[in-house]
Amino acid sequence: MTSASASPVSTDLEVVDTWWRAANYLTVGQIYLLDNPLLTRPLAPDQIKPRLLGHWGTSPALNFVYAHLNRIIRRDDRDLIYVCGPGHGGPAMVANTWLEGTYSDLMPAIERNGGGMQKLFRQFSFPGGIPSHDAPNVPGSINEGGELGYSLAHAYGAVLDNPNLVAVCVVGDGEAETGPLATSWHANKLIDAVNDGVVLPILNLNGYKIANPTILARIDQDELLSLFRGYGYQPIVVAGGYDGEDPMAVHQRMAEAMDEAFRLIDAAKIAARAAASAAAAGASGGSGGLGGLGGSGGSGADAPGHDSTAAGQSAGPHDAARPAWPMIILRTPKGWTGPKVVDGEPVENTWRAHQVPLNGVRENPEHLAQLQEWMESYGPRELFGDDGVPTGILDSLRPVGDKRMSASPFANGGRLRSPLVLSDHRAHAVSPSDSSGLARGAAVSATHVLGQWLAEVVRDNPHTWRLFGPDETVSNKLDAVFDVTDRGWAAHLLDTDLNLARSGRVTEVLSEHLLQGLLEGYLLTGRHGVLNTYEAFVHIVDSMFNQHAKWLESSTEIEWREPISSFVYLLSSHVWRQDHNGFSHQDPGFLDVVVNKQAHLVRISLAPDANTLLVVASKALRDTDTVQVIVAGKQEQPAWLTMDEAEAHVDAGAGIWHWAGTAGLDADGSPATPDVVLACAGDVPTLETLAAADILRREFPSVRTRVVNVVDLMKLQDVRDHPHGFTDDEFDALFTTDKPVIFDFHGYPSLVHQLTYHRHGHDNLHVRGFQERGTTTTPFDMAMLNDIDRYKLVLDVLEYVPGLAASNPTAAARFQGLRDEARAYAYEHGEDHPDVTGWEFGR
Amino acid sequence: MTSASASPVSTDLEVVDTWWRAANYLTVGQIYLLDNPLLTRPLAPDQIKPRLLGHWGTSPALNFVYAHLNRIIRRDDRDLIYVCGPGHGGPAMVANTWLEGTYSDLMPAIERNGGGMQKLFRQFSFPGGIPSHDAPNVPGSINEGGELGYSLAHAYGAVLDNPNLVAVCVVGDGEAETGPLATSWHANKLIDAVNDGVVLPILNLNGYKIANPTILARIDQDELLSLFRGYGYQPIVVAGGYDGEDPMAVHQRMAEAMDEAFRLIDAAKIAARAAASAAAAGASGGSGGLGGLGGSGGSGADAPGHDSTAAGQSAGPHDAARPAWPMIILRTPKGWTGPKVVDGEPVENTWRAHQVPLNGVRENPEHLAQLQEWMESYGPRELFGDDGVPTGILDSLRPVGDKRMSASPFANGGRLRSPLVLSDHRAHAVSPSDSSGLARGAAVSATHVLGQWLAEVVRDNPHTWRLFGPDETVSNKLDAVFDVTDRGWAAHLLDTDLNLARSGRVTEVLSEHLLQGLLEGYLLTGRHGVLNTYEAFVHIVDSMFNQHAKWLESSTEIEWREPISSFVYLLSSHVWRQDHNGFSHQDPGFLDVVVNKQAHLVRISLAPDANTLLVVASKALRDTDTVQVIVAGKQEQPAWLTMDEAEAHVDAGAGIWHWAGTAGLDADGSPATPDVVLACAGDVPTLETLAAADILRREFPSVRTRVVNVVDLMKLQDVRDHPHGFTDDEFDALFTTDKPVIFDFHGYPSLVHQLTYHRHGHDNLHVRGFQERGTTTTPFDMAMLNDIDRYKLVLDVLEYVPGLAASNPTAAARFQGLRDEARAYAYEHGEDHPDVTGWEFGR
Repeated sequence: MTSASASPVSTDLEVVDTWWRAANYLTVGQIYLLDNPLLTRPLAPDQIKPRLLGHWGTSPALNFVYAHLNRIIRRDDRDLIYVCGPGHGGPAMVANTWLEGTYSDLMPAIERNGGGMQKLFRQFSFPGGIPSHDAPNVPGSINEGGELGYSLAHAYGAVLDNPNLVAVCVVGDGEAETGPLATSWHANKLIDAVNDGVVLPILNLNGYKIANPTILARIDQDELLSLFRGYGYQPIVVAGGYDGEDPMAVHQRMAEAMDEAFRLIDAAKIAARAAASAAAAGASGGSGGLGGLGGSGGSGADAPGHDSTAAGQSAGPHDAARPAWPMIILRTPKGWTGPKVVDGEPVENTWRAHQVPLNGVRENPEHLAQLQEWMESYGPRELFGDDGVPTGILDSLRPVGDKRMSASPFANGGRLRSPLVLSDHRAHAVSPSDSSGLARGAAVSATHVLGQWLAEVVRDNPHTWRLFGPDETVSNKLDAVFDVTDRGWAAHLLDTDLNLARSGRVTEVLSEHLLQGLLEGYLLTGRHGVLNTYEAFVHIVDSMFNQHAKWLESSTEIEWREPISSFVYLLSSHVWRQDHNGFSHQDPGFLDVVVNKQAHLVRISLAPDANTLLVVASKALRDTDTVQVIVAGKQEQPAWLTMDEAEAHVDAGAGIWHWAGTAGLDADGSPATPDVVLACAGDVPTLETLAAADILRREFPSVRTRVVNVVDLMKLQDVRDHPHGFTDDEFDALFTTDKPVIFDFHGYPSLVHQLTYHRHGHDNLHVRGFQERGTTTTPFDMAMLNDIDRYKLVLDVLEYVPGLAASNPTAAARFQGLRDEARAYAYEHGEDHPDVTGWEFGR
Repeated sequence: MTSASASPVSTDLEVVDTWWRAANYLTVGQIYLLDNPLLTRPLAPDQIKPRLLGHWGTSPALNFVYAHLNRIIRRDDRDLIYVCGPGHGGPAMVANTWLEGTYSDLMPAIERNGGGMQKLFRQFSFPGGIPSHDAPNVPGSINEGGELGYSLAHAYGAVLDNPNLVAVCVVGDGEAETGPLATSWHANKLIDAVNDGVVLPILNLNGYKIANPTILARIDQDELLSLFRGYGYQPIVVAGGYDGEDPMAVHQRMAEAMDEAFRLIDAAKIAARAAASAAAAGASGGSGGLGGLGGSGGSGADAPGHDSTAAGQSAGPHDAARPAWPMIILRTPKGWTGPKVVDGEPVENTWRAHQVPLNGVRENPEHLAQLQEWMESYGPRELFGDDGVPTGILDSLRPVGDKRMSASPFANGGRLRSPLVLSDHRAHAVSPSDSSGLARGAAVSATHVLGQWLAEVVRDNPHTWRLFGPDETVSNKLDAVFDVTDRGWAAHLLDTDLNLARSGRVTEVLSEHLLQGLLEGYLLTGRHGVLNTYEAFVHIVDSMFNQHAKWLESSTEIEWREPISSFVYLLSSHVWRQDHNGFSHQDPGFLDVVVNKQAHLVRISLAPDANTLLVVASKALRDTDTVQVIVAGKQEQPAWLTMDEAEAHVDAGAGIWHWAGTAGLDADGSPATPDVVLACAGDVPTLETLAAADILRREFPSVRTRVVNVVDLMKLQDVRDHPHGFTDDEFDALFTTDKPVIFDFHGYPSLVHQLTYHRHGHDNLHVRGFQERGTTTTPFDMAMLNDIDRYKLVLDVLEYVPGLAASNPTAAARFQGLRDEARAYAYEHGEDHPDVTGWEFGR
């Protein structure tokens, strides 16, 4: 291992170049070759893959960065991870991990020799093999390179609470055009310079996407630098490799840039810690040193910062400078070192280098010769021995053990994960009875109760659990967490700010994309957290949910990937309580997106009350390798279940609430056959169903009702389709096979039909739910607009219980009249009729 | 009308201030009052709304901008529209439109007098009334303010091909944190300075979101300016209103900033036109003058630009300067002019001003008095006559007729919309027969054929139709459009670029959000277009689709909103042909999101071949007020139908392909009863189904098969649920009520069950589709992984046709053997077995 030095030594750079050539060689080999990996014979057509599906364009720069980072790791003994943003970077990342030996350590079938190299080449973009994107199968990866835009958010999530980690994030200039990436640059305002680690972004401007130039490569350099200074970074530009420039000159510039970047990082960290120590004995600071801190000549005086205050505002005394962290802009030709001209057309440094620069290689002898020449240009005989083992010179750049970025435990977070310390949620149980002790339905905000327990989670897990949300922690009534922590904020602070500090366990920013990416990065590096957001707007991250679910699906099939904490969504401003926000805020369709994923990956919990929410959340925070969607309102709603009942109910997933219906039990203690099943899922539908049951009890005492509440939505699915699903017998025992079931549902009715279409009693199932009718109105009018209200449920019972309407000929008109009256009252007074605003069961 | 002048006159600004006070008064009134709108008596509790649901914080700045824009319109006679980005800006926009008279013009029940004012106040955030966000009900709006982040993209879409329009877009500093907004700033590189209009962004830094400061308000001014210069703008800062500063001083600064902004806009337009004229007699240029062009003293010499070239790259001779368009940064206190302190806590200029600054006004006499004082502070008796009509001084700032931003036809695009000129798509029909004329199934890329017709659409509609996509026009084989146009690109051009020019009808940028927003803005201003993208990644804009569908739903209920062109998605790189990209690119779930919207708003077309795609696209381009989702592969696939057959098939939406099955017709010409129905929807499932039918014909000639293809997915729904839906009789006539139906589906199988669960034959319906099993493999292996392949369909027939398996006891093992063999071949050779790669029907 070489010792730290202020400027790169040229012999170092010879090794860096050798590594780069080796990685490039291995990349090209993966794209093209089935056989003859060491070019021991002239290439023949049958050694070429029949379908050439890889992408070359982005890889040489990825390899270039990898080699230079290994120089830094070897010199400074730092903890780095490599987050690879550009699409189709898979073969490059695989090449480096194989060179490092990690690939063979984890997948012994792919040995680090000529035989292994052949398998490595063959498996790429091949049936039964590996994809062309950076993905879970790549050691050291925490970012899928398929759907672009999330690399930087993942990198920032990774460094939260990892003060000694530097996440180097290569951002492609295509990816940089996406919205999520464009806002993720601002995550530097959400990072604590003392207690969190550092992200070093490297924007690779290779100039082209699939068939187009990129925006950032086609604006003036002044504009480009201004943009990144505006984002709060200190950009360092490295450009080169054009028109056949000697790569050694580019290596020299890159090494200087890397040294400068890490010098700035160290200086900023030192300055931030010094400021924190000076500020107060009580400051949080003191969380260990960076591996190479001070080793590369940094000094506090060099630390850049933003000291001046915003116009018209005065900074508080605790407003220490936010460092202007470095970033590198690396401008290199797309497809660098690949074929310059193919069939008379320029390829290197054009969009033609995006995919496979040489096509039809099996059929075209000229292309075959060009491929041979291209691969030979890397000098394979200097790179690999006759046995295909990388030569000793490469070992001198290979970090040791877990310092290899491909072997970093930070990038296989399950290795670092510990279960949370969770206090007893039962201590926060609320009594469902009112003060008289006679009636169920005491009003309470479920999320307010949950927040008090979450405050204990924060307190007991000060470095491993975080809460994320788009500025809604208070509005969602989780504000008890602010008794024990703050929002983390690295931008200016004012004296008037509340619960805002340099260090805090709550991250709020108005970008669901950034929040989702941060939490993913946090979980993938072995920690825990919850994202709370509006139900309608969680659709903003539909595609990110999809990709994370796919990541989990792929990961669980990879033996060496350790389980990570489940991603927990808390949707606490839901469709039924957006009466003040209106139609744009009313959409329960995320549930439909979620159920399309493989069943073992997803859980949907519709908590009917506060105690149930506590139980559901407590379970979700213990789970691994799933996505947990919890829907629970923030408004005051009745509490129905005692804590013991809630525990049993959540364990069962769904059950009969005997106290709410009139059918009762048979002599043997089994549930008596009802005339009608009133089923419900979701807090508002549960309230309306229980209100309907009460009306039926009073008005139609001869009708035997059974109330069934569903908290685990996947219970409705067949056990053959979902591990939580009911057997047919279990389902039939709750819902009967032949009685009418009036199902009041939180979301779109079709979802319940989708989950139950092959159940025995399905033909008798009548589902009420959101019918895409929304506006600004009262809560009860919202229910009526979509036919989920208590009166409509009673009307349904009248319609579907045989003989009931006939023996009560005026009843339907009367209940329709009550609906009309409720609406007229709301439209006249601007609030709901007193008859439908409260609820105390049994009165 | 005052004449143009170089600097604002103070008497002008008195009027501007009066307008601002009037609009603020009307905003507060909407939030609080049921009665006594003119404060003719002291406020009493029962005049206050019982539920105070509005939001005040953002409104005063919105009103401030509105007043200043009216000064510009009156002076220069310009065409402006106002795109209101911040959330909860509804009452402000409504206030201004009522002042302008447009509100009463369009909704005569709300008169422009005291009685109308009372109704205006009452309806806001009230049952049966209007929402708190800018929305379709607001005259002049093309942007819903509920889900934040799309305002700037809408504004840029609006100015495309409207060279004389300036879209002023107020961006909230909360909204500015979203990803879509963060990348939308770059849309200035996609705008043609000659042929498109101009967007003037006004970033309102009021400092706070719901409970937090905003990032952009808490960074140094230097950083902020650097950011927007980096985005390519010339920022002009106006700050004021803090600590009780006299608003007239702020008006003065704002007026100067506005004058400067419009001077820069005019200068840049003049310079761009001059450059275009000078460049060539053949240039496109010369598209009329801006209304106020030259009226405010602009000169070409002032035009800012970016002339220097990117590092390492040389600009071509056609690389004229891209203007650095102006933008305004308006820094004002949140809740400006509202209560400074409430209950001892500061409110103005804090997050406490976000919603209703004074709560519990009915119950709290002190708050009631504060409300009275607040409203009186605007001087209502100077603003409105005793009859409530706005006073004459306000008329002097009121633009006339369609120049009122609230009455602009650009913001009610249906008023400007003309149907497209569409050439006969039949001219592009391909023959489904091969050269021998005997067999169906000639291979062709459906999107390639479509592209040739779309090129004619471009040619025939040079100012009103555009194609949008994330860099996939060529990859999706629509490249015929480049025979007649280019990609529009305002960043640097190089000599090596292809199909890239200052002016072009194709917009490509790697942000689905920006593309969706641009097309929405283009449609909402009366034009037409198509978004082509990857099926998996259209999930990125799930929420934008949702919001646009909600916009359409609301708009169709508003009499004065004219129909706009349908939003057309072409999903041409779909789940079944991502075998080279792998699992991250495989997701057909957008269809599930789409079907949740109200049925009359959405159409889903799964084109089985090229001629069908032509017919479907031709219909979609003629439709209004819907969202059209077209799924069609880009790979070579068999053509099955003649053009006549395709027309009839699309008209019917689904039908029996008699030539493909063996059941044939009865003597009376009606379809004979089959033993099994082979149904399919989507191009790959259609191919596999026809292959299965052919195998069955050859191997089991006694089995009578019926092949049913579904092109309009909504046909499966009941006609009572969807206007396209089949009646039960129609459904039964295709699918039978009692025969097994093997349905091979493009998407998730559950969607077909969801659409058909109550059909008579549902219990016999067995659906194959995407089961979330994906990877990098061969096309046929992808089909096998998800059990949609021909052999699996044959196995299903063996299972479900009574007696068939028993009489062919070895058949199941044989077909399973063929599957194993196909997989083994693919894994060995890296390409599909020759038996399953081609298809010519009837051989």
